[in-house]
Amino acid sequence: MATVRSAAQGILADDNTETREQIIEMLKKAYWMEIETVMSYITNSINPDGVRAQEIVESLQQDVQEELGHAQQFAQRIKELYGVVPGSLEFSAEQSYLQPPEEQTDIVHVIKGVIEAETGAIEHYTRVIEETEGIDPVTQDMVIAILHDEQGHRRLFEGFLREYEALGLA
Amino acid sequence: MATVRSAAQGILADDNTETREQIIEMLKKAYWMEIETVMSYITNSINPDGVRAQEIVESLQQDVQEELGHAQQFAQRIKELYGVVPGSLEFSAEQSYLQPPEEQTDIVHVIKGVIEAETGAIEHYTRVIEETEGIDPVTQDMVIAILHDEQGHRRLFEGFLREYEALGLA
Amino acid sequence: MATVRSAAQGILADDNTETREQIIEMLKKAYWMEIETVMSYITNSINPDGVRAQEIVESLQQDVQEELGHAQQFAQRIKELYGVVPGSLEFSAEQSYLQPPEEQTDIVHVIKGVIEAETGAIEHYTRVIEETEGIDPVTQDMVIAILHDEQGHRRLFEGFLREYEALGLA
Amino acid sequence: MATVRSAAQGILADDNTETREQIIEMLKKAYWMEIETVMSYITNSINPDGVRAQEIVESLQQDVQEELGHAQQFAQRIKELYGVVPGSLEFSAEQSYLQPPEEQTDIVHVIKGVIEAETGAIEHYTRVIEETEGIDPVTQDMVIAILHDEQGHRRLFEGFLREYEALGLA
Amino acid sequence: MATVRSAAQGILADDNTETREQIIEMLKKAYWMEIETVMSYITNSINPDGVRAQEIVESLQQDVQEELGHAQQFAQRIKELYGVVPGSLEFSAEQSYLQPPEEQTDIVHVIKGVIEAETGAIEHYTRVIEETEGIDPVTQDMVIAILHDEQGHRRLFEGFLREYEALGLA
Amino acid sequence: MATVRSAAQGILADDNTETREQIIEMLKKAYWMEIETVMSYITNSINPDGVRAQEIVESLQQDVQEELGHAQQFAQRIKELYGVVPGSLEFSAEQSYLQPPEEQTDIVHVIKGVIEAETGAIEHYTRVIEETEGIDPVTQDMVIAILHDEQGHRRLFEGFLREYEALGLA
Amino acid sequence: MATVRSAAQGILADDNTETREQIIEMLKKAYWMEIETVMSYITNSINPDGVRAQEIVESLQQDVQEELGHAQQFAQRIKELYGVVPGSLEFSAEQSYLQPPEEQTDIVHVIKGVIEAETGAIEHYTRVIEETEGIDPVTQDMVIAILHDEQGHRRLFEGFLREYEALGLA
Amino acid sequence: MATVRSAAQGILADDNTETREQIIEMLKKAYWMEIETVMSYITNSINPDGVRAQEIVESLQQDVQEELGHAQQFAQRIKELYGVVPGSLEFSAEQSYLQPPEEQTDIVHVIKGVIEAETGAIEHYTRVIEETEGIDPVTQDMVIAILHDEQGHRRLFEGFLREYEALGLA
Amino acid sequence: MATVRSAAQGILADDNTETREQIIEMLKKAYWMEIETVMSYITNSINPDGVRAQEIVESLQQDVQEELGHAQQFAQRIKELYGVVPGSLEFSAEQSYLQPPEEQTDIVHVIKGVIEAETGAIEHYTRVIEETEGIDPVTQDMVIAILHDEQGHRRLFEGFLREYEALGLA
Amino acid sequence: MATVRSAAQGILADDNTETREQIIEMLKKAYWMEIETVMSYITNSINPDGVRAQEIVESLQQDVQEELGHAQQFAQRIKELYGVVPGSLEFSAEQSYLQPPEEQTDIVHVIKGVIEAETGAIEHYTRVIEETEGIDPVTQDMVIAILHDEQGHRRLFEGFLREYEALGLA
Amino acid sequence: MATVRSAAQGILADDNTETREQIIEMLKKAYWMEIETVMSYITNSINPDGVRAQEIVESLQQDVQEELGHAQQFAQRIKELYGVVPGSLEFSAEQSYLQPPEEQTDIVHVIKGVIEAETGAIEHYTRVIEETEGIDPVTQDMVIAILHDEQGHRRLFEGFLREYEALGLA
Amino acid sequence: MATVRSAAQGILADDNTETREQIIEMLKKAYWMEIETVMSYITNSINPDGVRAQEIVESLQQDVQEELGHAQQFAQRIKELYGVVPGSLEFSAEQSYLQPPEEQTDIVHVIKGVIEAETGAIEHYTRVIEETEGIDPVTQDMVIAILHDEQGHRRLFEGFLREYEALGLA
Repeated sequence: MATVRSAAQGILADDNTETREQIIEMLKKAYWMEIETVMSYITNSINPDGVRAQEIVESLQQDVQEELGHAQQFAQRIKELYGVVPGSLEFSAEQSYLQPPEEQTDIVHVIKGVIEAETGAIEHYTRVIEETEGIDPVTQDMVIAILHDEQGHRRLFEGFLREYEALGLA
Repeated sequence: MATVRSAAQGILADDNTETREQIIEMLKKAYWMEIETVMSYITNSINPDGVRAQEIVESLQQDVQEELGHAQQFAQRIKELYGVVPGSLEFSAEQSYLQPPEEQTDIVHVIKGVIEAETGAIEHYTRVIEETEGIDPVTQDMVIAILHDEQGHRRLFEGFLREYEALGLA
Repeated sequence: MATVRSAAQGILADDNTETREQIIEMLKKAYWMEIETVMSYITNSINPDGVRAQEIVESLQQDVQEELGHAQQFAQRIKELYGVVPGSLEFSAEQSYLQPPEEQTDIVHVIKGVIEAETGAIEHYTRVIEETEGIDPVTQDMVIAILHDEQGHRRLFEGFLREYEALGLA
Repeated sequence: MATVRSAAQGILADDNTETREQIIEMLKKAYWMEIETVMSYITNSINPDGVRAQEIVESLQQDVQEELGHAQQFAQRIKELYGVVPGSLEFSAEQSYLQPPEEQTDIVHVIKGVIEAETGAIEHYTRVIEETEGIDPVTQDMVIAILHDEQGHRRLFEGFLREYEALGLA
Repeated sequence: MATVRSAAQGILADDNTETREQIIEMLKKAYWMEIETVMSYITNSINPDGVRAQEIVESLQQDVQEELGHAQQFAQRIKELYGVVPGSLEFSAEQSYLQPPEEQTDIVHVIKGVIEAETGAIEHYTRVIEETEGIDPVTQDMVIAILHDEQGHRRLFEGFLREYEALGLA
Repeated sequence: MATVRSAAQGILADDNTETREQIIEMLKKAYWMEIETVMSYITNSINPDGVRAQEIVESLQQDVQEELGHAQQFAQRIKELYGVVPGSLEFSAEQSYLQPPEEQTDIVHVIKGVIEAETGAIEHYTRVIEETEGIDPVTQDMVIAILHDEQGHRRLFEGFLREYEALGLA
Repeated sequence: MATVRSAAQGILADDNTETREQIIEMLKKAYWMEIETVMSYITNSINPDGVRAQEIVESLQQDVQEELGHAQQFAQRIKELYGVVPGSLEFSAEQSYLQPPEEQTDIVHVIKGVIEAETGAIEHYTRVIEETEGIDPVTQDMVIAILHDEQGHRRLFEGFLREYEALGLA
Repeated sequence: MATVRSAAQGILADDNTETREQIIEMLKKAYWMEIETVMSYITNSINPDGVRAQEIVESLQQDVQEELGHAQQFAQRIKELYGVVPGSLEFSAEQSYLQPPEEQTDIVHVIKGVIEAETGAIEHYTRVIEETEGIDPVTQDMVIAILHDEQGHRRLFEGFLREYEALGLA
Repeated sequence: MATVRSAAQGILADDNTETREQIIEMLKKAYWMEIETVMSYITNSINPDGVRAQEIVESLQQDVQEELGHAQQFAQRIKELYGVVPGSLEFSAEQSYLQPPEEQTDIVHVIKGVIEAETGAIEHYTRVIEETEGIDPVTQDMVIAILHDEQGHRRLFEGFLREYEALGLA
Repeated sequence: MATVRSAAQGILADDNTETREQIIEMLKKAYWMEIETVMSYITNSINPDGVRAQEIVESLQQDVQEELGHAQQFAQRIKELYGVVPGSLEFSAEQSYLQPPEEQTDIVHVIKGVIEAETGAIEHYTRVIEETEGIDPVTQDMVIAILHDEQGHRRLFEGFLREYEALGLA
Repeated sequence: MATVRSAAQGILADDNTETREQIIEMLKKAYWMEIETVMSYITNSINPDGVRAQEIVESLQQDVQEELGHAQQFAQRIKELYGVVPGSLEFSAEQSYLQPPEEQTDIVHVIKGVIEAETGAIEHYTRVIEETEGIDPVTQDMVIAILHDEQGHRRLFEGFLREYEALGLA
Repeated sequence: MATVRSAAQGILADDNTETREQIIEMLKKAYWMEIETVMSYITNSINPDGVRAQEIVESLQQDVQEELGHAQQFAQRIKELYGVVPGSLEFSAEQSYLQPPEEQTDIVHVIKGVIEAETGAIEHYTRVIEETEGIDPVTQDMVIAILHDEQGHRRLFEGFLREYEALGLA
């Protein structure tokens, strides 16, 4: 590709290859987090029983699409930074807290699992934002928007949990 | 809520409680500014008479929705940062410059009032952006977008004013 | 404006100036009731925590738009009757019962507040309908439609309250 | 429900309980009329044969939705007035004139049946409008709009009948 | 049509034939007023020149559709009351005040013409509302809604006129 | 308007003033034909009774909008050629053949009236197309498209007539 | 209809008249089940009070349309098999378990009623599927799709019930 | 294509080549039937004259799209079964009964032609369903859905015919 | 049909019968060309294999609708000129160059076939445009628009061919 | 749940518990196949480079949504049959053939991988269809529809492969 | 490209190469006129200040899209006539009269500039129409439609100018 | 404009005039880059021939709108910062690498040209982002979003180029 000039500035410049690869690694991790969340939300948007579960079920059902969109944004950005989106063999499940509970009416289990998942995402994305500061504003901007979604989502489920605690159920 | 892990990093971390409360105070002020603007724009989008007023009336009518949206975004963010959105008793009107004029054909009064209101908003939001730098990128990002709206709006009304000045009417 | 003929009949006729002003006063009061309701519903559609709160939160969120529309209809009618829509300095909060509760999971507080607010509106609008009978059918027709909305809304929240009472929570 | 104040004025006031119940009875009758009309229109929008029948079949098919909507409006209003929407066991069919004819090409039978049904509805709704005058403007307003639909519908089928009479077929 | 029962109550009952015909006459007059307004608004939404005219031109262009809709509503109601919608030979123009002015930039001429036309409509519709009170609530309800449109429209153009008067141009 | 250069070529050039005025006269006639057609089609889309009339009624109802659009196109073109769209006082009805018949089930009367009206339009528009040939291609192009609509419409109603003739009813 | 050849094969063939009539009987029963369900769901989507009821109310409200659609499909198929859709006099209510409860907050009553209704439908439709196997694949295919809807619906309400049982409320 | 493994089971398996080819032949015939129907329906949706013809004309016009869709489905399925969609030279017209009649108002001719065409299609598709039973469920399912369309369509036109017979016109 | 006046001018005038019939013949030919093209494009939008074929397949798939629309326009115009749209027995295939090739990856065969078909259409339509000049502007206008489509389409496929030639594949 | 009657017939009956569990196992496998396909298609819709890849990339991008929908249908059906949708820890990747290739322009690798994946799905779904025959028509019907999608998809990619083979690239 | 037959008639025939090139030159000029207009309208739809400017600003903003569409039509036609759309280096600005004025409230400058630009376009397009008469009806038809747009636009701005002249401002 | 208070803080403050002008200069350059790109993409989305070119042609066609939107955003921001959007005379072409190639099938020329153009844009926008850091967050935020678009676009065309290189064509 010697025939076309590379950008001399910014994250796509040849000088920034190493930095770029570090960012790619962080983006891959983010990608897998979102993919596993898609799985967990499908599961938990179908399994639970009960009227109160409906509110949570519908909330998760909508999030399936949102989280899938996040995954595709991360994958697209990996590509733009000259990385390769990993294949399914590299996937390894980590969300032990979002597996189906013993009893399908145990909604508190699901709520806590969602908060745990969102907390992990928030921590990781905060780190990405810090590390791209002044280096890759495009990635940073994209991740800030995703972080906003996750913070709002976690806040909602914290409210759910607080109610159950108040009722002595959590 | 000891049962779920808090985020260890970022604005939601337990260490950042004090900072978070300062941001919440600024967001509350922003919230009230937008709410009063909603009131003032309803008033000023209905009272004025005349052909030339139509342009301004329609402009303000559309802004009612936009400013209400801003208010809801600020309120939502207050909630996400563990604050409480204030009730109507805490409201205290400040936009003396946007009260109905003596004469409903006095459009210059309205134009200057809008510019004054936007100037106040721009100053306050600029301060929020500075104070959240490197601390709460999500709030910052949200406020930058709102600031852009307000700058564009003020620029438009400055143009209106300039014309009236050129005609010796302002 | 001597150059154009006034309508010789109906509420816009010159003979009916005094009556028109009484109606305008009642419409101003209605206008402020709706504006405060907008504020209170934004607050109470964001503050509450918990699964059960979701149903109420979503209901109030939709009502923000509806009540804003009512406010604009009242303001528009004031203008049509040759009145002036008041500015924000004339606003004075009255809905003490819709301020944020001590505890954000105290949903009964919100429900009772909404019923109180709707009751006040129903009483005031019933009076407007009586006083405009045979005098200003246009205003009357408009207020009947708004009254219908408020009655339906109050009925819904009474049902919510009844449930909490049955559970011994209200 | 002593904990919340009832409206002191209008049809929802405690003083008007008896009147309210009379209105509810009339609304229940209206409700059952519309429900039976839904059944009859499904039947008569599918059974008839022939090209000329098509025009009437399509007209009735669209009316199924419209009449169902009327039924739901009546039911909703019953609820708002503190009544209970009756269950299916209380239904008793009355539209003997809208049963399937001997011969599925006997379109005149259908036309006359529809006019009879609409006539009954018009008479009943006219009575509701008279009895709610000055007492329950919200119900009155709702029923006037429904009455308008039924008058227009009857007028259309009268035109159909007139044509068949002119052809010596009715 | 002896084969089907007439409604025994309300405006469509046989006893009310005379009243019905009086209402039909008033509706025919209303019908022709709207038709002529359609013509006048097409003319005056195309002829005027100038930037300030644009606001008025666009306003009238939208009203063409609205007024046509009113005409069709009046015609439909004439039919429902067993009247006959009149043919074009019965039309006779009356809006001398809405003919094209000498100079196509004479916008004040147009504004005054519109106010005159709306004033006439308001007076006539007010009379229809009074005469149908307690007799034909469906017609009354329909005309109140149309009256609201016309009042709002007149108010808007009065504002336009006031401005021109303030500028010493009217 | 000496300050801006006129087009030196085409129908808008100063040399073509006379020709332009002849075209304007023809366009005015076309404009009034369409306006009267709007009136006649409203009348005839509401008056007729009967099942068979429905097909024709719906057809005319849709044409009301189409013919109004034609009228607006003619008016717009008059303006573009520096003419003035005439006011309602200049209207004089000519479609004696489209007045309401004695009997509202006399559909043949309506069909023949529509054919007559379309025939007149086709003749007039054919003449406009001939006279603008090589002189004003924009007007010509616009009128050809309108002519197509009218031919198709006439063809449809001729088919309706043929059927009634076959049945011995016309 | 001797003039057209009947299909020599399949359920519409003349040889299959008897079988066809058996299927028609089953379809009529299915038709009445769906019609009664429409009634019951309107009733139970409006009567209940309370926050938890909202979820069920909204679910039933959507099902009103779905069940009406099923009824129309059954009626259409009866027609296609040369049967006659029955009139309202043949209706006889059977869903004693879906009548309004004593107390409008008794949601468990509604849930159990819905499950009972769906169970009856599932049993009847399973029988239809078996009896049409290899005989009338079109009816079979249509009923399988409807059965899927009913199974999913019952499963949802079983989940609701399970929750109430877990809470000791059912 | 030795490089990819063939499905070992189902209609696409190598063992089922012969069966697959028999199905393809039947699908080709179905394909040509639908293509000819497209031609015939265009012709017969444009030629007929008269009010009563309109119903049939519009019905056929919509069917043009539907039948074209069927043709494309058949063609697609031929491709999926490794067949080749035939070219236009292989087309040979067979619907002698759907050619334009002597007289364009002879609607009975068209109705009988449509019934004949649908009967042929129903017979052929019934055979396809039988022969694919247990062998190619995908084709079977697709054809059942198409058969349903054709049955419903034939039923509609039988109703048309019956009416004409009742009138002594067929 | 002596009862309605024929247009005295233009292509529909009685004097122009012969000319009209010549145009009808040309339109019939055009009609059959479009119908055969529909068939050929279905075939060639499904048969081809391969990635490069996709582009052509999608292009032809869209054209199926477009060409069908052309056919319907031609048929409609035949009708408007008092002709009869021909039946399927008059169809005779001519596009030998668009039959399926030996090998379904032979895309060049398809491309050349499409160009050949478009060339024939362009030639025929050019002739129609010449012969209707000054005689039937409506037909001419319609055919010019269709010609534009065909020219653009041919140009696109010529570009496809040129590429294959450059690659030595055509 | 002893309080409500179970269905006595069909797959949901108590007698069929064992069969139901076998079907659930097959559905779980199908569920995981679809989930892994989602992952693989995201990866392979973003990684490939080049013009020819675009066609495949877009095709896979659309399939991501389709396959996700399949997964949700399988999960829903598991729930309806009283099973539990498994959590992410039970996932184990199997599509070794759809991992990212060495070289991102190696499109043949992707094509073969997709065919392999679809082949596996077709085989498994064929088995499900066989085993549910006469036992659970609802599951069978759902899986037939999904099988249709997969067959069509595989056929498309086989066409892609054939072309590459013809070019000596596969 | 000897392998495909060229059209023997019309503008694409080999004999008409020279004529075609002359038309292409005129189309290139038209193309550049439209491109420059796009630039000028962006500039002049953003720079001006003031209430009265708003009307013009909005008008120009909409025209940006319209003029871009014209440019693309011209470019497409150049391609269809075997020409090559020129690159940006061939652009040379000519609209000296549409550069930003000294003072951004000088709206008369903008109005006159627009009229000048439209006049130039009208002259050039009139010439294209004349020169393609009888030679290339497709190009002619396309240009007539564009000419209509430009005439209407110029007429609008002439009206604006006339007003300013009447006010002594131009 | 002394009559209204300027913002005391942020980029619009009087103290920041010089900085603001430097930013305006950079925005003007960005504006012209986008405008030239619009021209180049129109040209290159119409000129190329061939199947493979289609993918690129469609990609560029969509980008025309996107790049025009960027240009308008830059122009709007120039205005907001009190600058003047430059006129067409200031344009000077620079994209020598995007002129039409000798041969219209030379797609590699186009691909390289696009990459070159995007590279230039990326470099310039990276510089803008750096220089506005901490000074004008609104401009920075807007440019980051545009930069993201350009990076993604360049990455896509690099993939195209890589393929051609692999084939030995670039």
